[in-house]
Amino acid sequence: MIYVTRKAHFSASHRLFNPSFSDEKNLAVYDKCANPNGHGHNYYLEVTIAGEPDPETGYVVDLKKVKQIIEEYFVSKVDHKHLNYDVEFLKGIIPTAENIAIACWNQLAPHIRDGRLYSVRLFETQNNFVEYKGEKNG
Amino acid sequence: MIYVTRKAHFSASHRLFNPSFSDEKNLAVYDKCANPNGHGHNYYLEVTIAGEPDPETGYVVDLKKVKQIIEEYFVSKVDHKHLNYDVEFLKGIIPTAENIAIACWNQLAPHIRDGRLYSVRLFETQNNFVEYKGEKNG
Amino acid sequence: MIYVTRKAHFSASHRLFNPSFSDEKNLAVYDKCANPNGHGHNYYLEVTIAGEPDPETGYVVDLKKVKQIIEEYFVSKVDHKHLNYDVEFLKGIIPTAENIAIACWNQLAPHIRDGRLYSVRLFETQNNFVEYKGEKNG
Amino acid sequence: MIYVTRKAHFSASHRLFNPSFSDEKNLAVYDKCANPNGHGHNYYLEVTIAGEPDPETGYVVDLKKVKQIIEEYFVSKVDHKHLNYDVEFLKGIIPTAENIAIACWNQLAPHIRDGRLYSVRLFETQNNFVEYKGEKNG
Amino acid sequence: MIYVTRKAHFSASHRLFNPSFSDEKNLAVYDKCANPNGHGHNYYLEVTIAGEPDPETGYVVDLKKVKQIIEEYFVSKVDHKHLNYDVEFLKGIIPTAENIAIACWNQLAPHIRDGRLYSVRLFETQNNFVEYKGEKNG
Amino acid sequence: MIYVTRKAHFSASHRLFNPSFSDEKNLAVYDKCANPNGHGHNYYLEVTIAGEPDPETGYVVDLKKVKQIIEEYFVSKVDHKHLNYDVEFLKGIIPTAENIAIACWNQLAPHIRDGRLYSVRLFETQNNFVEYKGEKNG
Repeated sequence: MIYVTRKAHFSASHRLFNPSFSDEKNLAVYDKCANPNGHGHNYYLEVTIAGEPDPETGYVVDLKKVKQIIEEYFVSKVDHKHLNYDVEFLKGIIPTAENIAIACWNQLAPHIRDGRLYSVRLFETQNNFVEYKGEKNG
Repeated sequence: MIYVTRKAHFSASHRLFNPSFSDEKNLAVYDKCANPNGHGHNYYLEVTIAGEPDPETGYVVDLKKVKQIIEEYFVSKVDHKHLNYDVEFLKGIIPTAENIAIACWNQLAPHIRDGRLYSVRLFETQNNFVEYKGEKNG
Repeated sequence: MIYVTRKAHFSASHRLFNPSFSDEKNLAVYDKCANPNGHGHNYYLEVTIAGEPDPETGYVVDLKKVKQIIEEYFVSKVDHKHLNYDVEFLKGIIPTAENIAIACWNQLAPHIRDGRLYSVRLFETQNNFVEYKGEKNG
Repeated sequence: MIYVTRKAHFSASHRLFNPSFSDEKNLAVYDKCANPNGHGHNYYLEVTIAGEPDPETGYVVDLKKVKQIIEEYFVSKVDHKHLNYDVEFLKGIIPTAENIAIACWNQLAPHIRDGRLYSVRLFETQNNFVEYKGEKNG
Repeated sequence: MIYVTRKAHFSASHRLFNPSFSDEKNLAVYDKCANPNGHGHNYYLEVTIAGEPDPETGYVVDLKKVKQIIEEYFVSKVDHKHLNYDVEFLKGIIPTAENIAIACWNQLAPHIRDGRLYSVRLFETQNNFVEYKGEKNG
Repeated sequence: MIYVTRKAHFSASHRLFNPSFSDEKNLAVYDKCANPNGHGHNYYLEVTIAGEPDPETGYVVDLKKVKQIIEEYFVSKVDHKHLNYDVEFLKGIIPTAENIAIACWNQLAPHIRDGRLYSVRLFETQNNFVEYKGEKNG
């Protein structure tokens, strides 16, 4: 078993707020991340696929294909966008790093056919990142 | 002469468009950066001050003070903000990296009293950065 | 399950030596790290917390709180300190990266209430790092 | 249990092609990586060893020894070499990142005596890396 | 005046040797870089353009165009190539970092029309880089 | 003219204080950097040499020689040392980053014979660095 990782990045705006909270509660929970006009990040993504190297090619998966899948099903839909308003698959979701990583997993997983999607890591700033491995609660 | 640099960072949204351009021209010039709902970046800043080390302290300038000046006069005003709408000193300015760097220089220069402001470098993404040294055309 | 990571850093001195070893043995084991006047590092820390995102906030844990816990219970006690002499919770412990990471875990774990502490990674130089996940021997 | 990691790097050439494939198939599978004169990379390596810290030294393993093992049994044999032609233990192996990581594991594992080899990570570019943990199929 | 920088990267092989030197002299001068089968690097490039921001667009130069110029006239010709054999504009040139940077300057300069080419920086490894600013001897 | 840079690093302790200041003044000037038992850093160094490439070798300077000069005359004398007590050429000098960079220049400059020493950059933390180019006041 080998774990193969491809990085990607995108730049986007978001605003953290829950429309069912009062303004005061949004500010208490999200602080400056609740600023009405939003703010943004350069997001860095690490997508890891687990599998056996094919004995003929030496590849677990062709990373050029992984790059295309990441671009087509995720990055092209979020890059230079406002995550609260412009992205179909984030409608109704508070765009925390946690929720973006889960959404990314859901976008990519059905298209990974060589090996299996093992992990999505999302770096929101140089000091914060999240990782999702598809683990669900009983 | 020693050049002393302090880094800082902030996260913000912006939209590149010129209100005097048509929508078509804005799209032609700024491409996806003209997306109406904006997008964002983690901006990294390098502020360089040039001067002689004080023989008594060995410092050109106390970087704790530089950190406070950067925070008070620039970072606190742009961090987690939308650069087109939320920042007084960017009103009427298209927030390209070039213009943000010049605005940063203008915000900081009057407050640097030990040594002199030598350079402001602004990294917009990991692949793009600009530098301004206060040079003006004849 | 999502893994959320916050980075932090501190600068400190240490000396590696075991007072029960002879000088020769300390030098043989620790080489230049046993230099009597000590040496130092910029330490980088990655603290990872595992949990489910709260459906109301989209957060596993508020990273501002994690930042405060890391600062209050660990970084403020080691930053700009000599790890052999100045830190109560390292008294009697040889401050190898391994032992500092375990001590960091022990300092932080009781204060993590949203999610659970999953991992402490400590980078001593750009070439060396250690990770502790709270695993203990039977 | 602590996981201790040492980084290393080397620069090498390689060419991805399978001599049992036609030229067309090599180009279809490996694209520009099949260029006959080869190309190269700065490879970065992270070698992780898992173990208990020795209560006397505070070390899981002396990283100076790990550095020497990595140098003697792996880096000295691949650095500034052409991986298809110059490396005994890669003879007959297509030098994909996956296969280099497995070969690195096989070179190092017999020499790790304090703790056990836990992971080999190999970064081929800043955007691609692979990890091998010695896991084998049933 | 603003200095605008765009980064790019490519992976290539090279061999350092001067065909007019004896094998002994090539080895003495270039050491392991003279290995007959060559070796390779991930090269990182920083291309800096100096100019005044256009008052209408706020851009010194459209970095998308700079990216295309770098790709068309330089990166596409060296990426995944052997610099001694596969590159027309390096024929007869020993591909040291110094000479590659000068060749890059010569490839790009005629195509930079907004602002002027100010600097080409080429990182050969994480520890070595060169910069060329078009300065020539009297 | 080409500018060739070699990086190096070392880990050391220091304490910032001026023995002619009162304890109160040392604390006011240097804050936590005045802690009596000292603290430490991983210092990163960039040494830049300017010159013309030799037409026969394509090198401004053989970086292996530069590496040896940096190691012999500077790094070996400061690595894993306490800069206030253990370093002959820092005796009587307050080891601020500014003063260490000047001392590094003075140690290296007499030994650079191919090209000329152009700049010494010293990174004290990831957020602070200084540069010295040998410029002196009239």
